[in-house]
Order: sequence, then C-alpha cells, then structure tokens
Amino acid sequence: MDLGVGPRTAEAMAAIRARISGGGLGPGDRLPSIRRLAATLGLSPSTVVEAYDRLAAEGVIRARPGSGFYVVPGVRPPLAFAPAVGRPPAVDPFWVSRLALDADPAMAKPGCGWLPADWMPTEALRRAIRTVARSDAALLTDYGGTRGSPALRRLLANRLADEGVPVGPDRILLTASGTQAIDLVCRMLLRPGDTVILDDPCYFNFQALLGVHGVRTVGVPFGETGPDVAAFEATVAAERPRLYLTNAALHNPTGATMAPQTAHRVLAAAAAHDVVVVEDDIFADFEPDRSVRLAALDGLDRVVRVGSFSKTLSASVRCGYVAARADWIEALVDLQVATGFGGPSPVAAEVVARLLAEGGYRRHVEGLRRRLDGARRDAARQLGDLGMEPWTMPRGGFYLWCRLPDGRDGATVARAALGEGVVLAPGDVFAVSGSAAAFMRFNVAWARDARALDVLRRALDGPAEEGAAPDG
Amino acid sequence: MDLGVGPRTAEAMAAIRARISGGGLGPGDRLPSIRRLAATLGLSPSTVVEAYDRLAAEGVIRARPGSGFYVVPGVRPPLAFAPAVGRPPAVDPFWVSRLALDADPAMAKPGCGWLPADWMPTEALRRAIRTVARSDAALLTDYGGTRGSPALRRLLANRLADEGVPVGPDRILLTASGTQAIDLVCRMLLRPGDTVILDDPCYFNFQALLGVHGVRTVGVPFGETGPDVAAFEATVAAERPRLYLTNAALHNPTGATMAPQTAHRVLAAAAAHDVVVVEDDIFADFEPDRSVRLAALDGLDRVVRVGSFSKTLSASVRCGYVAARADWIEALVDLQVATGFGGPSPVAAEVVARLLAEGGYRRHVEGLRRRLDGARRDAARQLGDLGMEPWTMPRGGFYLWCRLPDGRDGATVARAALGEGVVLAPGDVFAVSGSAAAFMRFNVAWARDARALDVLRRALDGPAEEGAAPDG
Repeated sequence: MDLGVGPRTAEAMAAIRARISGGGLGPGDRLPSIRRLAATLGLSPSTVVEAYDRLAAEGVIRARPGSGFYVVPGVRPPLAFAPAVGRPPAVDPFWVSRLALDADPAMAKPGCGWLPADWMPTEALRRAIRTVARSDAALLTDYGGTRGSPALRRLLANRLADEGVPVGPDRILLTASGTQAIDLVCRMLLRPGDTVILDDPCYFNFQALLGVHGVRTVGVPFGETGPDVAAFEATVAAERPRLYLTNAALHNPTGATMAPQTAHRVLAAAAAHDVVVVEDDIFADFEPDRSVRLAALDGLDRVVRVGSFSKTLSASVRCGYVAARADWIEALVDLQVATGFGGPSPVAAEVVARLLAEGGYRRHVEGLRRRLDGARRDAARQLGDLGMEPWTMPRGGFYLWCRLPDGRDGATVARAALGEGVVLAPGDVFAVSGSAAAFMRFNVAWARDARALDVLRRALDGPAEEGAAPDG
Repeated sequence: MDLGVGPRTAEAMAAIRARISGGGLGPGDRLPSIRRLAATLGLSPSTVVEAYDRLAAEGVIRARPGSGFYVVPGVRPPLAFAPAVGRPPAVDPFWVSRLALDADPAMAKPGCGWLPADWMPTEALRRAIRTVARSDAALLTDYGGTRGSPALRRLLANRLADEGVPVGPDRILLTASGTQAIDLVCRMLLRPGDTVILDDPCYFNFQALLGVHGVRTVGVPFGETGPDVAAFEATVAAERPRLYLTNAALHNPTGATMAPQTAHRVLAAAAAHDVVVVEDDIFADFEPDRSVRLAALDGLDRVVRVGSFSKTLSASVRCGYVAARADWIEALVDLQVATGFGGPSPVAAEVVARLLAEGGYRRHVEGLRRRLDGARRDAARQLGDLGMEPWTMPRGGFYLWCRLPDGRDGATVARAALGEGVVLAPGDVFAVSGSAAAFMRFNVAWARDARALDVLRRALDGPAEEGAAPDG
C-alpha cells in the first residue's frame, strides 16, 4: 500500500533503512540528530522528521521523548499478513462468508453476495467522499447523534413514505450495517431458548446470527410466492415463535418474491400469535417494480424494517438502518449506545446521504437492473449448458438458485472448485430444517467469468457423491 | 444541510416547488416532460433531470418508470428532526451518553468524554479522506476482509510491539468501535448470570454494556494506584468472576494510573482464579510516558487489549480494534461476521492507517498533551474557586474527578445545569457498588467555557440536597 510518502521522505527513509540493514546502526543505537542527518543527506530537517516518524510508525525505530530516536532492538513480529488458514473443513454458514470476504483478488467468487467493484458508482462515490472531506470539523471528528445523520434519515423516511410506510425520521435509527440492525433487534426481543422462524432455504448468515443469540430456528418451506402459508400458520401455532426473519423482495437465495396474498396471511398469522416480523429489504432496489411490503401492510407496528446500501452503493462505506415502532427505536438507541457507543460513522452516513440525494442514484440503479437482466439470461444459459437448472427465474437481483445435475452434492462441488480458486455457495449452507445439498446459489454478475465456468465444469465432472440428497 | 446542489439545479427545483405550492400542479399530477420544462425554463435537460431526481429523493415527486414524474399525493411525514425528548429523568449511565451525543451544538458539555472538534487534526483528516477518495474501486466499494485493513493492523502491531506486546497483525481484529470490540469479547466469553469485576467508579458505559449481557457486576474500589489489591483478591476468590474490565492507563473517570505492583498482583489473582482481563487502552496516547500495561505483563494470554482512535483522531471516522489470543481472534472474527457482516468501514480504516503512518500523528498527540496540561491546571484552579477539589491530579488525559463542596449531590447539580444548557457528568453514573453522589467528572477541554462555569456556579448555589452521600 502506498501511504503517500513524498520522494524526498522516501529517500531519507531508504538511507536510514540502509544504515540499519548494513549494520552501521545496530539494535538500540541512537540515530543521528535530525539536524545532522539533514545536513548529511542534503535534505531539510522537516523531511528527516517525517522520515523518522514514518519509520517509527512502521516499528523500525522508536522515539524516546526528549532523547531522540533509537533502532528498535530484538525480533519484530512478522509483518506479513497471515490469512485465515486452517479453517475447519465444515461447510457451514461461516464457510461462504469467510471465503468470500477473505478471498484473494485473483479468485473468482460466483458464490459471493455482492456485485463486483466495477458495477458500483465509483466516480460518484469519489466525488461524495471529496465533498464530505470539506465538511464542518464537527462532522469529521465528533461521534454524531445517537440516531445518526438527520439528513440521511429524512431521505430514508421519504423512501419509506413512497412505499406506503409513512413514518418520520425519528422512527429510523442508523446502524453500522444492515446485519447489525438485525442483531440489535434480536438483542431487544429475543432471549436464549426462544424460537425464530426462517424461510427454508434462507440467507446463511441469518442462521449464524441467530446462533449467537442462542435461539432455536425452525424453517418454513419457501416457494415461488413466498413461505408455504399453511406450513407457516401451523408452525406459528405449534412452535410459538417470537420472531419471523425474512427478505420480502427478491428472497436470498432463491430470488423469489412474496405474493400479496401470502404477505397478508403471513401477517395475519403473526398477529394472531404475537410474532414480530423482521423484514430485511436489502435487495429491494433491484426490483423492476415494487412488490408488496410487509412493513407497508402492517404500518410498521409488528413489522421491523431493516436495510442498507451495501449492495447498490458501497459495502465499504458501511451504513444500515432500522425503522420500527417509536418505543422500540428508543430501546434500540440505548442498545446501540451501550454496545457500540453510536452507530455508523457520521462521515459514512453523510457520503450515503449525498449519493441518495443526487439524481444519479436512481439512474445508477436502473442501469444495474438492465445490466443484471442481461447477466441473468446469460448465466442461466451457460449454467444450463452445464446441466444446472434455475429453480425459478427471478424478476431482479443477482441470484440464481440452481439445481445441480445428476444428484451432485453442492458441498463436494464447492470444495473441488475452491481448490482451483473459485468460491461457490453450496445449497446446504442455506438450508434450515431440510436439505438443499442438490442446489447452489450463483451470483450472475460473476458467473460469466470464463475461468469460473471452466472450473465449475471440471468440479461437476468429479465423481458423484453417494448419499447426496436428490432434492432440496 | 447543503447537499451540493448547483445554482441551475436549485433554480429548476424552486420553479417546480413553486408550481406545486401555488396549486398549478396538484397531488398525483404528472410533471411536464423533461424536454418541455427545460425549454420553458431555458435550462438544459440534464439540469431538469437532476432537479426531478433530487425532488424525488426529497419525496416531493415520484418517478414511475417509463411514465414520468408525478406529484406525491397525500400528507407527507414531518421532515423536521424530532430530537429524543421525554427521556425518563433517571440519572443513569444512559443519561450522560444520550445528552452528550444528542446535545445541541450551542450547549456546553463539560461532562462529555471527548475533545472539542477544534482540538482534532482536521486538516490532516481532510487530506487523508481526499487521498482515500482516490483509492482503488475495490477499497471504496467492497466489504473488505474479515479482520479489516492489513495496513492498519500492521501499524497497530508495531505500536503493540513498542509497548512490549509482540504480536503479529493476524492477532488483531478491527472493529467498528472500541466499545464494539468490548461487546464482541463479552459475547464470546460471558453468559447471563456470570459475574464481572469493575473498578468503582468506572466508565459508565461499561455498566450499560454489561447490563445488555445480563451479567452481575461487582465493584472493587479504585484508588490512586489502581484497584485496591486486597479487595480485588478477596472479590476474585469469593465471587468467581469470569472477567475484569478496566482502563489501564488514565482511568476513566479518575485519571489515575495503575502502579506496576498493583498490575502484577491483579494479574496474579486473575491467573489463580482463571479470570480474563479486558484492558481498554482508549486514553493510552494521552500519557506523558508509558505506564505498565496488563497486556505487556501478561503477553496477551489472558489479557485482551482493546482500543480506538476516537479520542485522538476522530470519533466520526469510526474504527476500533482488539488484540488477543489467536484462537479468540478466530472466534471474534466469526462473531463479527455473524452480527455485523464485517467490522469497520474499510474506507474508515484506511483513513486511520494514513493518519497513523504519517509523522503528524505523534506531533499532534504531543501537542494535545501540552494543551491538556495547561487546560488541566486552569480547570483545577477554576473549579477550585467554586469549591470543587480534584480527587487526584492526573498525569494526562482530559478528566478531573472532583469532589463537590458541602455535600452537594451531583445529580441535583447536573439537572439544574442541564436546564441552562450545560451537560455535566454526575458521580453516581460512574458508581458500581458504592455511591459517588458527591463527585463529578469534568472534561478539562470544555471546563474553561466561561458560560459553563457560570451555570455551574449557579447550580452549586442551589439548595443542598438532604441525604446526599458525603463521600464516594
């Protein structure tokens, strides 16, 4: 990484390093005074100060106040980054997360849950960050208010009102991420031993998250129009769950959308048994037209709405949000103060607010949708050529949930592909109560990668596992 | 907030708003086509597109894909920011946090736990943010690795090595804040009903955080050389705590520093009864010279080291870290993925890395120390004139823990001052087992505010409470 060293400072640093590596300066030796080294090298004293300070930050030398700089004695810890190696081979929810997040940039990631960097609005992001760099000192240095940027919350309130959820900005709390918003809601409402309903299959990190809370999860089969309503009603009555956690639009991993009748009956069953519904709307902006929202039907009473802009703007500028009942927002504010002393970086929230306020956001998202429509068609055809059949053709978003050919086992295929530098998302990490070993989730934005397809073809050509589930 | 609207776009937005407010365009009406309005106003079509998009983001109009823009019908939610009002009057740990974080900029905050914005290295911060705006697209848009920025972790490893804690960057996990780092450690190690030892008094948010975990807290009296060792040993033996949570350098709220003998005996007692020690080093850079660190004595075996740069660089560019045993870091990585899908914003971590790598950081912190030495002397004198006596004169940092005159009650004084726009930190919010009603914590960087001192003088002149504890 270039940490912005000027050429003269670099020259001074190189000269000092050379003296140390050459043995002219040994461990514990005092370095020349700034004035003397500046004269020797023909550089300004301020350049030498900068070089000394940078070498001190690197740990090569050390400042002793009032005494000067000294060569650091003894063995230094290894500076090379040791990646997470030796993960247990269990193909569990953490398997995909860790592999996809820590993947070498050279690896292909058809299993990951975000778009490639070159699909993101990088230039608009650079402009927004530069503009925020000129903000008031207080925005750049202070903690910010407990609810987070008023400007961003006003913009979010307008978006919610557009969806038929008329709430003020005070009913919205900004968080460090969408996942963190769900975690805060779980901390508020769940106790160990409680039961939570999940779609089966569902986003694998929902299970990891609920595992941290020590709750029991029960899956309800998820079909092309949402959860199986009869199964949902029976489960709610029999299991007395506290919470139902779902994606309302463009479900992860299937890409299916809940039908209005399903949404209505799910909410009625939740109300009859006092179940809270957490609706994660993370993929909502990828819909070609807006589907019915649980939050809108319910008026944000027993439904908690969660979202973020990690999929459409930036996952690096991290900012999520939660909209809920007023008294719950108060409790969530206290929880976030206690466990994080505030929410997202105010700088990050301001960057997101600028991007949303600009007209460019709508056009960017429209462009993403068009590009994804093409990528989805291409991926479906190319995966079809490999014998993989999409379970449904989603209206939007970037997932294709595909059945593997000939009873192949997803985990086996994923392990084989990983050996060749390709990260896949095997079906079973998404399964709750049943099995999804015969499925795999593909991100269509990455699936057109020729090398990834080639690796996938070879992995599928491996011996079929015995005992692989024939269906999900 | 100025969201960067150009003059021509602002003109177009004003024209459209005027048509709506004047009734020329009613709820549900379609707006003129972009081309037509551009011709009418003598502006370019792209300016009108920008204006329409911004008004849509504000919720005034709405885009219907393929059909145009429409005036939003119906009543909009109020756009004004409703601050957290009607807080219960209980002077508890949340009282100071919420008041200080949500305070109007016009309020004085001698009770807050950070430095004013004009003490922070704002220009260096602006430069670092602008430089990061030029980074690779992947840094600006991707989630980043599970442990966080390798560059920042290498710099932190060097700082730790300087303190005698030789660990590699893989033993460090970046988090969204120092508080979040402590929260993750608590999630890893604590179960409801466990016992945790706290210094008495201690940082009020430690109690709020541990309350979320449902654990029992026991206070050990904190004196001028650290916790009372005999009491610590007896408590550890009697209560079988799982964890001891402390600030090692410049304790919050007292500003006292643990003596080497105290640190050694505390660690020995912790080892004898298998107690984990979490050392929050948040104020370490304010020390004039380095005190002994529990993490250094212990070699980061049963001690977990936590920190952040919120006090010296920026609390808005949020980034904390935790250094611990290798197996614990692995567990914390999984916990952070499950509950936040990653740690700090990679953009934020990169900004912090740049600031630390530059020589300016050391000089900035030296400047802060000099400035605080002066502010501390002045504040002690001025508070002394009001009858308040510092419990100890700290070696560094920005706190003065003062005894109130004549048995005055801190909460009563703080409530009276709040009525006049001054946020104070009354002693009892820091108390664990005992009472600290007769004390108050002052931030010397704010205490020189003439109006704040005047309000404080009047608040102290109020009637003395009966039943106020004479001692802490």
